[in-house]
Amino acid sequence: MPVLVMKFGGTSVASLDEIKNAAKRVASEVSAGHSVIVIVSAMAGKTNELVQWANETSPLHDAREYDAIVSSGENVTAGLMALTLQEMDIPARSWQGWQVPVKTSSAHSSARIEEIPTKNIMDKFSDGMRVAVVAGFQGLSETGRITTLGRGGSDTTAVAFAAAFEAIRCDIYTDVDGIYTTDPRITEKARRLNKISFEEMLELASLGAKVLQTRSVELAMRFNVKLRVLSSFDDKEPNIGTLVCSEEEIMESNVVSGIAHSKDEAKMTLISVADRPGIAAAIFGPLSEVGVNVDMIIQNIAEEGRTDMTFSCPTDQVLKAEKALNGSKDDGDINFSHLVADTNVAKISAVGIGMRSQSGVAAKMFQTLSNEGINIKVIATSEIKISVLIDRKYMELAVQSLHDAFDLEKVT
Amino acid sequence: MPVLVMKFGGTSVASLDEIKNAAKRVASEVSAGHSVIVIVSAMAGKTNELVQWANETSPLHDAREYDAIVSSGENVTAGLMALTLQEMDIPARSWQGWQVPVKTSSAHSSARIEEIPTKNIMDKFSDGMRVAVVAGFQGLSETGRITTLGRGGSDTTAVAFAAAFEAIRCDIYTDVDGIYTTDPRITEKARRLNKISFEEMLELASLGAKVLQTRSVELAMRFNVKLRVLSSFDDKEPNIGTLVCSEEEIMESNVVSGIAHSKDEAKMTLISVADRPGIAAAIFGPLSEVGVNVDMIIQNIAEEGRTDMTFSCPTDQVLKAEKALNGSKDDGDINFSHLVADTNVAKISAVGIGMRSQSGVAAKMFQTLSNEGINIKVIATSEIKISVLIDRKYMELAVQSLHDAFDLEKVT
Repeated sequence: MPVLVMKFGGTSVASLDEIKNAAKRVASEVSAGHSVIVIVSAMAGKTNELVQWANETSPLHDAREYDAIVSSGENVTAGLMALTLQEMDIPARSWQGWQVPVKTSSAHSSARIEEIPTKNIMDKFSDGMRVAVVAGFQGLSETGRITTLGRGGSDTTAVAFAAAFEAIRCDIYTDVDGIYTTDPRITEKARRLNKISFEEMLELASLGAKVLQTRSVELAMRFNVKLRVLSSFDDKEPNIGTLVCSEEEIMESNVVSGIAHSKDEAKMTLISVADRPGIAAAIFGPLSEVGVNVDMIIQNIAEEGRTDMTFSCPTDQVLKAEKALNGSKDDGDINFSHLVADTNVAKISAVGIGMRSQSGVAAKMFQTLSNEGINIKVIATSEIKISVLIDRKYMELAVQSLHDAFDLEKVT
Repeated sequence: MPVLVMKFGGTSVASLDEIKNAAKRVASEVSAGHSVIVIVSAMAGKTNELVQWANETSPLHDAREYDAIVSSGENVTAGLMALTLQEMDIPARSWQGWQVPVKTSSAHSSARIEEIPTKNIMDKFSDGMRVAVVAGFQGLSETGRITTLGRGGSDTTAVAFAAAFEAIRCDIYTDVDGIYTTDPRITEKARRLNKISFEEMLELASLGAKVLQTRSVELAMRFNVKLRVLSSFDDKEPNIGTLVCSEEEIMESNVVSGIAHSKDEAKMTLISVADRPGIAAAIFGPLSEVGVNVDMIIQNIAEEGRTDMTFSCPTDQVLKAEKALNGSKDDGDINFSHLVADTNVAKISAVGIGMRSQSGVAAKMFQTLSNEGINIKVIATSEIKISVLIDRKYMELAVQSLHDAFDLEKVT
């Protein structure tokens, strides 16, 4: 029987009623003839409670103990889901990470899955079991300690199981019914996409469309796992959600598939930096050392041997960045005049694999923003993405006008 | 370094503050030069929540899934306790049952510990670790499933570890400061015992003094583990509690060590049963089959070939007992006239190993009750115990007068 992986997030298993609701979806896939692997998160709120206890007990905690504590929520859901399925007369059992075992690296709290042996579960499928319920987010290190994969790790667990078991698809049940052309709270013209490519999804995920964990999309792309995002709260038929798949499976790719936005990025400018070889390394080396995630970088043209260097980083890393740069300033190596942080900005991005073959997207984007009187502060591009930093107050307007300009209302 | 086992129950680890309080007691034993194995229960209330979820999901649940669910509370406490100790600069780590592994039978929800390998933990002690924190109540079956030991199982875990590691003592921290001559709520003359024998403790535990799980006392007796019961909420020094030990270590044993009482027992009388060989088997066979725990049994003298048969059983099993007996009545085998259940009774017991060598204890007990005008309905005795059933309204009076009669106020 073909294997299907179904993953239910915290809100989809928030109570016994929700677990029952999720189990019904599993039951219908069993009826359709699938052997199902269900990956479950902890009941909504449970992991936060555990994280809070661990942090309060020990702010700089031993990550091995932290992992042992915070992984327990998934185990509870796995057992409850197995019991719920058994009540529906479906042969099911639960597996905790160490029972599979989901072998991971020893990087506690952000471990990477290294191997998932399939024999044990496949044997049970052969014996008549129809559903294997697996606690997500967790694994086992080489030394026999419990590891966790980091926040959102259950998505990664699901994709890794789909890859290991060569599943026909990996369905991610969540509280939204798919991936949208933009945030529906900003414009009601936002449309659900039936399909989106891995590459586009990666750009959108890293731009703050928090439906799927970035690592899970990377993994799905590497192993060509068909990922489907759909709602566990939607009772309309068909509940098809959005399929995240390889580019080849998308007949007619959109020039632009979506407009993403983020308010969590700040613009930092170093005024009057010496324009000499090695200056970029001197600036971004210390930032990297303290863990600041620099996204966009631009360097103005130099005048009289001095230049301005602008970059963006997450708003909550601004203090850390300032401290690191002011520290380096005293080394005399960077020697800038002063540092200006602007947290009152938003990042707007247009994403689409069609950009590869079609020119003029950037021009259209800039013209649209210009027509609305919106000034662009920083620009960055990749093969399938154009991002700009603008004043935060124009964020909604920018998203709406770009959504119109690229005809996203008509996208399917 | 000598190994000491310390066990903290649910109320002793009910919050982060309580866990810190418990950790301080562990720290002081570490300072005293012990290698400590700490056995923890789930935070008070957590296991009940999990049990309720499992029962609500599936009333007749798969015990393997039930065990996987309800064991998770202890894992959280174990991790939090390890972190708390690390914060106090004490080298500590947690072990879940499967990591030790605590090998048990496959009787899920009431598994028996079969083996506890010591090498892994002893190696860590040799490497400088001072405290091993172990999640109580749980183990691993031969097939790699999680088992639990039944309610109060953490006491059993603690004693089993003390036996396996040849610990100098097993300290059970709880919400009372020791074993008393009787319930202090009934008479303020109740005194804490400094020492009590395993045999006496077993009688008291099974009589409803719920401080220690019966199985843990049996295990301690078999392996001669010195068990100490003491309060984790008592800050007075010395906090010595009560030592439960072998008879040989008690210099001067008391004739009577304690007066126990129980309101959870009912008196059942079968009126006019045929007085013939095999009648007792015909009555108690069906009761045993449906799981009724019969405690005391008496048979009146026969008149004209008929007799009355009286027995006691837990109050919550009365309906089950009635159903079983009325069912058998139709078989014609028992052929009693009718069945009278009296739930308005109390069981009072005097327990003491001194009874073995001293006579007159029963006579003194009956005389004392008679002086108070209390009628005895049923009597049962063992080598170190005399129990009577009386009207419930006399329960307090009976306990108080017997406590006085046996001079328990002066016991140490």
